[in-house]
Amino acid sequence: MEKISVFAPASVANVCAGYDVLGFSFAAVGDHMHFEKTPEKGVRISEITGAELPLTLEDNVAGVAVKALYNRFETQIDFGIDIRIEKKIKPGSGIGSSAASAAGAIFGADALLNSQLPSTELISLAMKGEAVASGCEHADNVAPSLLGGFSLISSYHPLTVSSIYCDLDLHAVVLHPKIEVKTKEARAVLPSKIPLTLATEQWGHLAGLILGLTRSDAELISRHLTDLVIEPHRKNLIPKFEQYKSAALDEKALGFGISGSGPSVFALCEGSQSAEQIKANMMQIASAQDYDFSLYSGEIDNKGTHEIR
Amino acid sequence: MEKISVFAPASVANVCAGYDVLGFSFAAVGDHMHFEKTPEKGVRISEITGAELPLTLEDNVAGVAVKALYNRFETQIDFGIDIRIEKKIKPGSGIGSSAASAAGAIFGADALLNSQLPSTELISLAMKGEAVASGCEHADNVAPSLLGGFSLISSYHPLTVSSIYCDLDLHAVVLHPKIEVKTKEARAVLPSKIPLTLATEQWGHLAGLILGLTRSDAELISRHLTDLVIEPHRKNLIPKFEQYKSAALDEKALGFGISGSGPSVFALCEGSQSAEQIKANMMQIASAQDYDFSLYSGEIDNKGTHEIR
Repeated sequence: MEKISVFAPASVANVCAGYDVLGFSFAAVGDHMHFEKTPEKGVRISEITGAELPLTLEDNVAGVAVKALYNRFETQIDFGIDIRIEKKIKPGSGIGSSAASAAGAIFGADALLNSQLPSTELISLAMKGEAVASGCEHADNVAPSLLGGFSLISSYHPLTVSSIYCDLDLHAVVLHPKIEVKTKEARAVLPSKIPLTLATEQWGHLAGLILGLTRSDAELISRHLTDLVIEPHRKNLIPKFEQYKSAALDEKALGFGISGSGPSVFALCEGSQSAEQIKANMMQIASAQDYDFSLYSGEIDNKGTHEIR
Repeated sequence: MEKISVFAPASVANVCAGYDVLGFSFAAVGDHMHFEKTPEKGVRISEITGAELPLTLEDNVAGVAVKALYNRFETQIDFGIDIRIEKKIKPGSGIGSSAASAAGAIFGADALLNSQLPSTELISLAMKGEAVASGCEHADNVAPSLLGGFSLISSYHPLTVSSIYCDLDLHAVVLHPKIEVKTKEARAVLPSKIPLTLATEQWGHLAGLILGLTRSDAELISRHLTDLVIEPHRKNLIPKFEQYKSAALDEKALGFGISGSGPSVFALCEGSQSAEQIKANMMQIASAQDYDFSLYSGEIDNKGTHEIR
């Protein structure tokens, strides 16, 4: 393969009780990335459109990820890789913008290098890329962006990632209010310790959610799409959070929560009709605010990052 | 139906990362209970063998459970219920002795009353019985004792119980060291607050364990049969805990942990041969101690409480 173009979807991490461990792929928006072999060796980013991001390899999420994979095979190959990025996911939106770049980068480079590495290894390399933007290595955006569906990161040492593909017609509505919520601030509002009783309630909910997803049981999913630990602290950083939540739940959303560390929020529901109605309700609230916003809806597909023509 | 005899199995609660929410049925030992319709109305316990337990209805786990169910139908029926209990599970052993009595009681009374209640309702009534002995209503022994396999109590409000029947040939080895660990003491050693980072690690493990069980994935189960939160505090109440654990893991146990709040401990493994070897290893350690003990092994069956002839 001489060249490949890929689509890398957005993703929602910290899914309710699955703080730090559960994310899902959201293909309603995603980056387009183009990879091509070059006669001269090495990796280079020749173009980025859609966002002001550094072309310098070591400062760029995609650059670091591709380089990490490329370095493993450098002695065995006689070509380089050129990367062009059409950035469609707004950096800082809380829907895995840098993770999509990292996932797309690894997918593209893997295709050209034919690395045959297991997916956990690829995720691990993509995490190194994403860390350039987020400051720490985490996998709950990178994994669903790469693999599609839901990804459970059940452990980091050793990295253990499981894909969960739910058979329900799950849709998500994602609102990105264009306000700045600094990751640092979102972290600072969290308590360092939580009551054991609250922790056990939360892990009960996560376990129920995982079971609901694997059994495609909408009732069980809905009962457990809740977050007793993080949301009470972070929702105050997102204006009108409770109104958006009520608007979504009034239209029979299965659940509602903060995407990543915000400011984006998401609703999960069954069927496109329900998604459109939730979207309309949230649009009404957002339109009355003094900030810009983006609003997306789409199904939770299982494709993850994939080749496009 | 005029009378019925039932077997109510022991159970292991607080399964590693599933503290408070996950239990499994352990049919290697269990109570035998006999229920018979009487012409005079009301509930009575006519005999208990194997343990010194009160015959007074309101002081007895089985009595309270049966009475709770009986009261619902009292106006519609013209018979009473007589209960005889052959207690085989040692009270205070930490393998759900009172839960078995409560589960057996509800199963037997339900059969005579033909109540047609959903299982969640029956579990809820059994919990009232068990509370007589434990002081609080919990379901992670009662549910697996009644339903067999693994039970996830993903929420208490509303009570949400899911059975997980794993396709692996899972066996458990349970050691009951005959020392007293007071529930009060076992509770007192637990911290009221835990670090958020530790909580997220723990709920990742629980989520992975649930996924492993539903997928019958021994590798995933084994990786996540761990408890970072409770075990470090409670293991000190159980002499030689670490030696038992090593002995089990050396023989390829999938995992090892404290049963309930102790003093019993359990190993989970695949296949009866592995179970026998683990049992032999643990026997060797226990025999060198200055306390009596019981040691059981058996498969995790999916029958739960059932009729016997």
